[in-house]
Amino acid sequence: MIKIQKPTLVVDLARVEQNIIRMANKMKVNGVGFRPHFKTHQSAFIANLFKEVGVNKCTVSSVDMAFYFAANGWDDITIAFPVNILEIDKLNDLAKQIQLNLLLDSIENVNFLGTHLSNSIGLFIEVDTGYLRSGIGVKQLDEIKKIILAIEAFESLNLMGFLSHTGNTYSKIGEKEVKALFSDAKNQLVHLKNQFIKEFPSLILSLGDTPAASICDQFEGIDEMRPGNFVFYDVTQFLIGSCSQTDIAVRVYCPVVAKYPERNQLVIYGGGVHLSKEKVKEKGQVIYGFVSKIKQNVWSDWIEGAFVQSLSQEHGIIYCPKEEMDQIEIGELISVTPVHSCMTADLNAQYLATNGQLISKYRTY
Amino acid sequence: MIKIQKPTLVVDLARVEQNIIRMANKMKVNGVGFRPHFKTHQSAFIANLFKEVGVNKCTVSSVDMAFYFAANGWDDITIAFPVNILEIDKLNDLAKQIQLNLLLDSIENVNFLGTHLSNSIGLFIEVDTGYLRSGIGVKQLDEIKKIILAIEAFESLNLMGFLSHTGNTYSKIGEKEVKALFSDAKNQLVHLKNQFIKEFPSLILSLGDTPAASICDQFEGIDEMRPGNFVFYDVTQFLIGSCSQTDIAVRVYCPVVAKYPERNQLVIYGGGVHLSKEKVKEKGQVIYGFVSKIKQNVWSDWIEGAFVQSLSQEHGIIYCPKEEMDQIEIGELISVTPVHSCMTADLNAQYLATNGQLISKYRTY
Repeated sequence: MIKIQKPTLVVDLARVEQNIIRMANKMKVNGVGFRPHFKTHQSAFIANLFKEVGVNKCTVSSVDMAFYFAANGWDDITIAFPVNILEIDKLNDLAKQIQLNLLLDSIENVNFLGTHLSNSIGLFIEVDTGYLRSGIGVKQLDEIKKIILAIEAFESLNLMGFLSHTGNTYSKIGEKEVKALFSDAKNQLVHLKNQFIKEFPSLILSLGDTPAASICDQFEGIDEMRPGNFVFYDVTQFLIGSCSQTDIAVRVYCPVVAKYPERNQLVIYGGGVHLSKEKVKEKGQVIYGFVSKIKQNVWSDWIEGAFVQSLSQEHGIIYCPKEEMDQIEIGELISVTPVHSCMTADLNAQYLATNGQLISKYRTY
Repeated sequence: MIKIQKPTLVVDLARVEQNIIRMANKMKVNGVGFRPHFKTHQSAFIANLFKEVGVNKCTVSSVDMAFYFAANGWDDITIAFPVNILEIDKLNDLAKQIQLNLLLDSIENVNFLGTHLSNSIGLFIEVDTGYLRSGIGVKQLDEIKKIILAIEAFESLNLMGFLSHTGNTYSKIGEKEVKALFSDAKNQLVHLKNQFIKEFPSLILSLGDTPAASICDQFEGIDEMRPGNFVFYDVTQFLIGSCSQTDIAVRVYCPVVAKYPERNQLVIYGGGVHLSKEKVKEKGQVIYGFVSKIKQNVWSDWIEGAFVQSLSQEHGIIYCPKEEMDQIEIGELISVTPVHSCMTADLNAQYLATNGQLISKYRTY
């Protein structure tokens, strides 16, 4: 085992496999296509664990990430981000290599792609059901019709269907709320699909976020789900109710560098550049992570009442009840469960598996 | 000039030089030693601009960053972070190469270093004047005395003095508040120094944060300042009052990928993985950056009333007044001024200078 000396992203591959198998089975049982989002792990090694359960298509969040997975044997990729026309040359290269699906919500972009791409691609119209990030409003039927007709005018552009990201499930805490929101989004999208399915019978609905995919069990009408975060889960998903503590597959191991028992605080070497500045509010407290002890290289359950209270560039401040603090020594490693595992993983060049293996990954820059 | 296609960190070197010269002169005029913090830029190229104005010592925030600058000709480095005893072997290597100064605030760590280092180092006792991040309370004179005596017991450990980071200036908006806080911290530290200066006449006081170094003009009693952020500045510093808009030397150029005029929003390719999730509250609004148009490869002044409203992994949502939005096209690049330039720079592998030059840097992972 590598001797950990500084903040290190650690992954439990057994948990990763369990999360993958559980989600793949759930989608299979429900007859829903499964196109997992790989922006969470960004790793060809972890992607192979999906291949082992029969997954052969994926979602990514950037053109360069698509190139990375294409180079690692993935030949059916959706870039689930509004198409960036400045990258048209790279998109054309990619479309030559693989089945590439892109997203858009304007006629201008349809025309741009139609006139600039020499290789054929699949196109999803991105639709918004209330998250208000990107996508055309689900009720704008006339506009949507015009986009469809614009797509149909180009031989290289193949209409795939409608795609939506119901990211508003992230603000819903609890099974009931997530189910209600997903059901509402689903109904809106099925209604939309029904307006066009006779004329375009191959149209599909692609949806998917980890809270809905984990919590919900009614997927009729949805053709494809694209959750990503479930591969690792994190504190946010735990608080939403998407997973249990023992499902969370990543931690950042951080050295304890100072103790201030008089104010119930520990300082760790582990800051915003290691964990990201993502935070969540829980019971009135701002939380940057939950913490646990590490015993024989295995992380324990979270220390009750302890949490990462603030982060600067390299410092993390942990609030810790006194009795627990007495058990923690300067120079010890402590385990931090990230608030948002996608952001934490993105900061890292590799994973250290709990079995000692180093696992490489793509990086944004 | 490189054709920018995706989020790109851009630096104006003329502004960087201006910021460096202004701060170096200010420290010189005030008779204060200048040990700038390099965690902001993390670049040997930018470090050389400091060399040109006579700076020959620096501050860093990690052991690996110290190795990077040591390899680039810096031979007097303070690691301004509580010593991480797990990195003892690397510290010993480093101490062999350069004049290395470390921080601590406990007798345990003094004894550990004294018994584990074979090369001599300088030691600062980290002192806290109210920021409550790390450091021993400035009024704990008995404890401080014990730490000094412990240091004196080891020949390899050289007592440098007291070091403090008055990071609480970051929560003070305005010249008056920053000056009052800095003056208070300075008085506490000078009082502390006076308790020990007779016995240890070479003791120095090392202080420094960008708001105080930029705004204040009374440094008597302070031997050394360690500001870092001033090299670039950012939205946070602008709101505190440390700089003007035209002092800010970095931007992230981001492609516009979607427009939603009905809700005054633009979507850019530029998210938390490019800008960091650092945010600031201004007039009741949460802000992730200010935005401006780019004309002939030069960024303009901020668009009044426009700001980055939210960030997800790769998406940025910009709020923009209607008249201004009409002037912005999909496929155009827009400039985002980061809320915290240290965090944004850390995410990047390099800078693109406005003159077209690529400038490499250290990376955390």
